[in-house]
Amino acid sequence: MNIVPIINTNDAVVPPPEPNSDLQGVNVISIKDNDSLAARLAVEMKADLLIALSDVEGLYDSPPGTDDAKLLDTFYPGDQQSITYGNKSRVGIGGMEAKVKAALWALQGGTSVVIANGTNPKVTGHVITDIVEGKKVGTFFSEVKPAGPTVEQQTEMARTAGRTLASLHPDQRSEIICGFADLLTEKREEILSANKKDMELAGNGGRMTPAMMNRLSLSSSKLNSLAIGLRQIAVSSQDSVGRVLRRTRVANNLELEQITVPIGVLLVIFESRPDCLPQVSALAIASGNALLLKGGKEATHTNRILHELAQEALALHGVRDAIQLVSTREDVEDLCRLEKMIDLIIPRGSSQLVRDIQRAAKGIPVLGHSEGICHVYIDAEASIDKVIKIVRDSKCDYPAACNAMETLLVHRDVLRAPLFDQIIDMLRTERVKIHAGPRFASYLTFSPSEVKSLRTEYGDLECCIEVVDSLQEAIDHIHKYGSSHTDVIVTENEETAEQFLQQLDSACVFWNASSRFADGYRFGLGAEVGISTARIHARGPVGLEGLLTTKWVLRGDGHTAADFSEQGSMKFLHENLPVAHPLHGQRTSN
Amino acid sequence: MNIVPIINTNDAVVPPPEPNSDLQGVNVISIKDNDSLAARLAVEMKADLLIALSDVEGLYDSPPGTDDAKLLDTFYPGDQQSITYGNKSRVGIGGMEAKVKAALWALQGGTSVVIANGTNPKVTGHVITDIVEGKKVGTFFSEVKPAGPTVEQQTEMARTAGRTLASLHPDQRSEIICGFADLLTEKREEILSANKKDMELAGNGGRMTPAMMNRLSLSSSKLNSLAIGLRQIAVSSQDSVGRVLRRTRVANNLELEQITVPIGVLLVIFESRPDCLPQVSALAIASGNALLLKGGKEATHTNRILHELAQEALALHGVRDAIQLVSTREDVEDLCRLEKMIDLIIPRGSSQLVRDIQRAAKGIPVLGHSEGICHVYIDAEASIDKVIKIVRDSKCDYPAACNAMETLLVHRDVLRAPLFDQIIDMLRTERVKIHAGPRFASYLTFSPSEVKSLRTEYGDLECCIEVVDSLQEAIDHIHKYGSSHTDVIVTENEETAEQFLQQLDSACVFWNASSRFADGYRFGLGAEVGISTARIHARGPVGLEGLLTTKWVLRGDGHTAADFSEQGSMKFLHENLPVAHPLHGQRTSN
Repeated sequence: MNIVPIINTNDAVVPPPEPNSDLQGVNVISIKDNDSLAARLAVEMKADLLIALSDVEGLYDSPPGTDDAKLLDTFYPGDQQSITYGNKSRVGIGGMEAKVKAALWALQGGTSVVIANGTNPKVTGHVITDIVEGKKVGTFFSEVKPAGPTVEQQTEMARTAGRTLASLHPDQRSEIICGFADLLTEKREEILSANKKDMELAGNGGRMTPAMMNRLSLSSSKLNSLAIGLRQIAVSSQDSVGRVLRRTRVANNLELEQITVPIGVLLVIFESRPDCLPQVSALAIASGNALLLKGGKEATHTNRILHELAQEALALHGVRDAIQLVSTREDVEDLCRLEKMIDLIIPRGSSQLVRDIQRAAKGIPVLGHSEGICHVYIDAEASIDKVIKIVRDSKCDYPAACNAMETLLVHRDVLRAPLFDQIIDMLRTERVKIHAGPRFASYLTFSPSEVKSLRTEYGDLECCIEVVDSLQEAIDHIHKYGSSHTDVIVTENEETAEQFLQQLDSACVFWNASSRFADGYRFGLGAEVGISTARIHARGPVGLEGLLTTKWVLRGDGHTAADFSEQGSMKFLHENLPVAHPLHGQRTSN
Repeated sequence: MNIVPIINTNDAVVPPPEPNSDLQGVNVISIKDNDSLAARLAVEMKADLLIALSDVEGLYDSPPGTDDAKLLDTFYPGDQQSITYGNKSRVGIGGMEAKVKAALWALQGGTSVVIANGTNPKVTGHVITDIVEGKKVGTFFSEVKPAGPTVEQQTEMARTAGRTLASLHPDQRSEIICGFADLLTEKREEILSANKKDMELAGNGGRMTPAMMNRLSLSSSKLNSLAIGLRQIAVSSQDSVGRVLRRTRVANNLELEQITVPIGVLLVIFESRPDCLPQVSALAIASGNALLLKGGKEATHTNRILHELAQEALALHGVRDAIQLVSTREDVEDLCRLEKMIDLIIPRGSSQLVRDIQRAAKGIPVLGHSEGICHVYIDAEASIDKVIKIVRDSKCDYPAACNAMETLLVHRDVLRAPLFDQIIDMLRTERVKIHAGPRFASYLTFSPSEVKSLRTEYGDLECCIEVVDSLQEAIDHIHKYGSSHTDVIVTENEETAEQFLQQLDSACVFWNASSRFADGYRFGLGAEVGISTARIHARGPVGLEGLLTTKWVLRGDGHTAADFSEQGSMKFLHENLPVAHPLHGQRTSN
């Protein structure tokens, strides 16, 4: 590729040369500054791309710094009318208007143009590589205007429609979800035929494992269970938005309420599994949130029709735009640029996906678990039966899950007991590959391969065994090497168990139960949003509540803070009032 | 400064030259690779600093990638025994051991050394400027070992002691806080004399305004009210950690509890006001959190003694280290590097401080309000008396507060009413400077200065007035220009009010009450942690609850997930059980 970077540090007047008759079909440009010179040079050199570096981020639709100014990431020649330039540029000649003129001229001559900031100390030196790598930096000048809205426009549309969605009656949100569920079965043929297309393309590519193909495929029965799941979410949606959590009589005629409200705009990023789309959409609708969806490329056709059906259901109450499907071409990093427009990112997929997004998401909170390094600790006073049942289930029930056991911690005394051989026999029968922790290896004459790291998430029929001397050592080991996801103690001694449950700093701490119970459905939270290893907002399995925040509503009668000052006439009462609705998490079981 | 950067891309064997007799008092170094060559060259050139760029972040105490490896930010010659080198380096010669040897040799010769990563694509080109600017990058080799622990060690100590603090009985945490309150009055003399020292130094500097001096100063009466405040926090601490929020019978003999637990390690950054230290410490103790405190430089002596007293109180139950005072030399940016060690950052100070920290805090959540652009909207059906009272209080009660009014939105009909002149008269009497929004300016023959931006937080006796046509326009204006902090409607029409309260997407929405009520104390939350404009975790005024998260405790009897499969013998009950304690936010008012 032929690239001409021009760093616009100090514009100087360059005398216009004679028009070059070689440039046929291209308007004449008079060379007045380094912008026009650059454009001329780039076209003459038949450069593919001209990068013009300025001291602003790129082209704005209004003068930068004014209230409404928005950076344009792509500019089409036809859009020129929609730009308002500032009256003066900091540098006499070569202001933005001159740059745009030069850029348009270069574009006509067949050279693409990016105008970007070259003065940002954190990026100088990389802005050029970033642009060459196709990252969204500055403003790109393009001849071709895409058919659909930009992702920024999609986010704006989603937020606006989302606010209407949030103000609907709970019954209306519930109707939308049920409508969507109906469409999943009514439009079964169209969905399955779109899915077939994706499956064929994926099969031809030959890069997908059978497990991946299985995740990608939909069937009539999958659609039926999806529809059933959606109707359950519709029921739980009745009681989510606008629930009163707290009521306080602050003073006479001054009443405070804390109520649940949607978080705002969610971005959900999911991998090949297209059944994620209806589930996540239903959760967003139930919680009154706007939603941007970014699905896997391999499920393009399936996701497109599922999204159309979601919008068809939303249109029932005039909020079609509340859920937007983002093009698979959009980089996650570029989406994370929309920092002020997206309120929460939820990655649904591998822990690698979650980690990547946590790294990219500057400033936007991410709800998800990056790692599940779960431990089962076998105390000296454990019951043989329970140990065998719990260890088998924790490791073998679904080894790829984040709540599967990765490390088996064994009290030293257990090593010498017959129980230990039974555990090993069971693991061998289940074909679990055993790795030895350093301490365990030192006890054995012939040991299995020593672990590379005690922090490994195998996600497969493999586990590490390590020996500890005491409960305290077990707790210290888990604090040091665990991921604070889910950890289990097996013991018949209640006091030991309670110490473990109390002292261990993990999202889920279990006594005599399999780690696999760490799951929203099994916990009885209804619809599951995901499992979070973050320490704030939501921790462990997250139900619909994880998609809600609160707002404070105060109703007074002309009350002022001054009324309550030392000289004032009023006194705070701060009297707690009963709340009419079932409380936070206290949904009755009927 | 004389700096020699050496980029270690590909080591080649360099034949050792003759020993140079000029280098007296320095051991001989044989030049075997570019590290030793660089060291030799740097010392010969009498360079102040040698920067050796490698493909790892710096020097680790164990081979990088092993479970316990920690990057050393400073390395002292005496520490060499505590380092374990890997068996092999990726590049034959010039591994880390060779680098350290060369670095120590250079150090002896009077040249400081930094070993850092030069291959990270995001920092190449800046790593050198960062190092020259004194940022913590890589490992710095220094002759002088500081007396105290490093900030990493402090954080580790705090976390460990914090875990013990969290496991104390609520009465014990309460005792610590009361003990601290007692010390504030008992050690009054020492505190005031330390404070006097700070005041003198600040006064001599001459750069502090009277308001800043006032914030810095302590007095007997300030200490008394601090002690009273602490005893109130001690009371509320009884009911914070270990509170059961939810109980579910998942199945027979399988019971789930969701209980409150501390978040972990908090970093609180506060500006000159030293009374912040006891308050924040008490809140951390009450919630069982470990705490890193970073105070303003101008309050060094006061903060030091207050911190000593906090530790004296903590020692009562063996948790002295749970609260650590971080040196004022530590950069906020460097503290934010401790991403995996700090769970929540709370900036207490100007919104500029909060914004700076939000920018620096990569990955660590920040609890705070970056902006308070609060609106009061005067509806066409507002009562004159209430308008005057509420606007005066919202703007003038304490204009520097984040919950003060910045923009007064007026319904078009009000402009023509006598009420409007009364508002203007009142604002003039209160010496409030008025700026006109563009729409308001267009209505006037002679208008006050037009606002530069409708998003301005004046923080002073200044405000913007703008005109809207309808409730919907008011809501749209606030959504567009507000900061979702606190917004008020004044109207006698209940339906209009309820629409405003329902549709407006702000942390606090008030009807006929001053914006100044957006405050933890006024809301009756007890101790106030701060006000948050974040949308997740905690929103609006935050009480002790904002410093808590939850964990899930499951008690079973050998239960496995397989028991509940289609072939299994058990069924989920998911029966909600009553909780013994007062519920989330439902503290009784006795």
